[in-house]
Amino acid sequence: MFASLSQQVEPMDEERLERAVSRLRADLLDAQYSVLEQARTPVVVLIAGIAGAGRGRVVNTLNEWMDPRHIRTSAFGPRDEAERQRPHMWRYWQALPSRGRTAIIFEGWYTEAIDARVNRRIKRHAFWHTLHEIQRFERMLAMEGAVVLKFWLHLDADRQRAHFRELERDRATRWRVTAEDWRAHRQHKRICKVAEEAIRMSDTVHAPWHLIDASDLGQAQLAVGKVILKALKTALSGQRRTAAPALPPLVVPSEQPAQPARVVTKPMSKHDYEPELEHLQGRLNMLLRHPAFARRSLAVVFEGMDAAGKGGAIRRITHALDARNYRVHPVAAPTEHERRYPWLWRFWRDVPRDGRVALFDRSWYGRVLVERVEGFAAEPDWSRAYEEINAFEQEWTEHGIIVCKFWLEVSADEQLRRFNERGRRRFKRFKITPEDWRNRERWGDYLPAVQDMLARTHTERAPWAVVVADDKYRARLAILESLCERLESELQ
Amino acid sequence: MFASLSQQVEPMDEERLERAVSRLRADLLDAQYSVLEQARTPVVVLIAGIAGAGRGRVVNTLNEWMDPRHIRTSAFGPRDEAERQRPHMWRYWQALPSRGRTAIIFEGWYTEAIDARVNRRIKRHAFWHTLHEIQRFERMLAMEGAVVLKFWLHLDADRQRAHFRELERDRATRWRVTAEDWRAHRQHKRICKVAEEAIRMSDTVHAPWHLIDASDLGQAQLAVGKVILKALKTALSGQRRTAAPALPPLVVPSEQPAQPARVVTKPMSKHDYEPELEHLQGRLNMLLRHPAFARRSLAVVFEGMDAAGKGGAIRRITHALDARNYRVHPVAAPTEHERRYPWLWRFWRDVPRDGRVALFDRSWYGRVLVERVEGFAAEPDWSRAYEEINAFEQEWTEHGIIVCKFWLEVSADEQLRRFNERGRRRFKRFKITPEDWRNRERWGDYLPAVQDMLARTHTERAPWAVVVADDKYRARLAILESLCERLESELQ
Repeated sequence: MFASLSQQVEPMDEERLERAVSRLRADLLDAQYSVLEQARTPVVVLIAGIAGAGRGRVVNTLNEWMDPRHIRTSAFGPRDEAERQRPHMWRYWQALPSRGRTAIIFEGWYTEAIDARVNRRIKRHAFWHTLHEIQRFERMLAMEGAVVLKFWLHLDADRQRAHFRELERDRATRWRVTAEDWRAHRQHKRICKVAEEAIRMSDTVHAPWHLIDASDLGQAQLAVGKVILKALKTALSGQRRTAAPALPPLVVPSEQPAQPARVVTKPMSKHDYEPELEHLQGRLNMLLRHPAFARRSLAVVFEGMDAAGKGGAIRRITHALDARNYRVHPVAAPTEHERRYPWLWRFWRDVPRDGRVALFDRSWYGRVLVERVEGFAAEPDWSRAYEEINAFEQEWTEHGIIVCKFWLEVSADEQLRRFNERGRRRFKRFKITPEDWRNRERWGDYLPAVQDMLARTHTERAPWAVVVADDKYRARLAILESLCERLESELQ
Repeated sequence: MFASLSQQVEPMDEERLERAVSRLRADLLDAQYSVLEQARTPVVVLIAGIAGAGRGRVVNTLNEWMDPRHIRTSAFGPRDEAERQRPHMWRYWQALPSRGRTAIIFEGWYTEAIDARVNRRIKRHAFWHTLHEIQRFERMLAMEGAVVLKFWLHLDADRQRAHFRELERDRATRWRVTAEDWRAHRQHKRICKVAEEAIRMSDTVHAPWHLIDASDLGQAQLAVGKVILKALKTALSGQRRTAAPALPPLVVPSEQPAQPARVVTKPMSKHDYEPELEHLQGRLNMLLRHPAFARRSLAVVFEGMDAAGKGGAIRRITHALDARNYRVHPVAAPTEHERRYPWLWRFWRDVPRDGRVALFDRSWYGRVLVERVEGFAAEPDWSRAYEEINAFEQEWTEHGIIVCKFWLEVSADEQLRRFNERGRRRFKRFKITPEDWRNRERWGDYLPAVQDMLARTHTERAPWAVVVADDKYRARLAILESLCERLESELQ
């Protein structure tokens, strides 16, 4: 989930940032006063995130940008005597805003739960129970008409360390870095893991999360402010109460998104590829004969644009398997019969039983890709699908199924080249249809859907691997290797 | 919760029952065919309950009454090999009906969870986690357009034993009673406790429970059939998808409800009352000085019709308390200011801290009493209040607050007598207003609201005590005694 943030944000030019901020401030203030006047919607802004990401600065900035007389900021640290003597949620109830006003919650209910779990003061089920209670609390807020906005400010471990070091270098700012901060740095990986679980379980339509890359604080603040402005405007238009709300993108794009540097390498030669392929196939075969696999099973999902090479990759895997133990499930649009059941029902028929492998050539992710983009599923339906998919995969993994998901990323140029090639080669001609060409035209519509999918459904137990697929040989080897590594870590 | 069922149901005369059944059968069949034809709504009927309550008979009867070709009945016992090799919910997904068809689930997901908890195979948090997962599953079904109907067939322990004995007496039916059944009988109390928790946590607007008194099986079957018929008709009219659905009553009234025998006793004399009162006040005072109470606290809720004697009862309690340690909170309609917050917010201000007592003269239950009856709260709002109240009280009790709730039941005659008396006595005249007379006229509207409230919010941790309040002296003593007993059991 956080991986989708870890691109280096380009610094934005000073002057442009300033212009954007001053426009935003004016708009935010207007919106704040209108919401206040309407006195219908309480606004709850929750700021959480990684130590050193600038959570406190964001809180201060929001108080500067908006009229602080109508904002109540509450920071929550360890519990004091009065708080310990009352029920768990009491202190949070005290911080709630009245209709029209805004509450900023700094280190609120999530930070407390995540911290308890990170330091192993509560077990897994108790942590889940707390998250369910939080969900119920937030649903209550939404039912009462509140706008609930949750922000996670993220820094990766390297940037967190660099940030602390920089502060320490200067005598004037050295005091800002505490022992606590360095402890948080040492726990960075575990904090991310726990936070990811918390976010995944509480990213709901009525109280969605917004992940913000905080490596450039100026841009991060701008992003937070824009999300708030948009939510206030929606609340003012009264849409929330009537139409079914849709899930906003989980990852808030920065103003100037970095272009992922595509590593252009020399295509791999067949000569180098073949021995490597055979080696990996052998390794995979051995792993699936491991005694521990008899009580586990494997589900592999392949998604990607047309001609990304899903079928080819699957065949290279099945060559390594015993035909009695695997099944390939090509997934197309649901049939008339399948449409008569809950949409996930058809995938429940294909659960691999213990000791078996199921390979999905496209999958349940069609719901949030083609069905979303083409409008085959209505917005409220695909919006709730992320939660449903996560729950679905959690049920599988809880049983012991190893779920691997591959997104094969092919460039538009390479896709075109492959389409043309298919058109030329007679035996591949059946593989290219007018629909493929039509889909290609909607390439731009697919990109946000893909980004959302990766951000919202990349979980610890069922992670996505994004495979650059312009070179088929490299892609196939990468997939096989990733599978072997995952199996090794699961079966040990 | 189950207490509200434990009135002896009057046997219904044979002929009348038969007429009612034949009318119902015809209507059910019509509705079933219409739903089938429409092919829009899948129907899930879940039958659970106490052993010996006739769950199997109900399933068979439904298959007789409706066209069994369009019903799929699935019974779930211990898991077989194929089921063990797949994720937990897999077998339940296989049993789902397609649009227009009906699935009857016998011993489904609840029975499995309750059984695991009763026999302590899972701990409390794991049990809650399972219930949350079930809730999510049922919400998914509802989102996909399904009608989900859940029935709990209840028998109290005495009637269960009598039923088993009767079957054992006859050689032809002896085989029906198994060792399993007697084990369930020995565990009756624990099963009820666990089931109550499960029902309370999963009684939602989209998949409500229906509690059926099964002491007369004929009437119970009729009740089940009627609920199904009503749900099918609602589905056919398409209301479910458009209007916000309302929560039906939890307890399904039997055809001929028993009249609770009001024990008419001679009024208690002041002479007998006073020494007893003093004795109980002393006992209560001692209990609140118990060292263990320093880490606990007490919240007492008084509800009842006007002139039921709430104020008088509260004063008899406060006479026993140290003025520094208690507060009385008279609850009226929310103020303009309070209305700007989530509705439960104002009660969170009055949480008693450790070692203190809070007495509520009327309370958060106004939401499901006066606000429901008078229409101050819209149906979707008071419908969700039961869940919210249960969650609210659970948060209080989890912290260690002892929550006691008294419903003072006064008869219409006695209320009239008290109103008239108040009108006559000058110093009590302020206590009677035109509104009181108006409320009195709506007496009949309050009764179902009271029944719903008692059924839906009577929980193990925050139980209701219904006090017959026509005799003030007896009522006050009963309340004090109940409080003392509760404190004794909590503080030991």
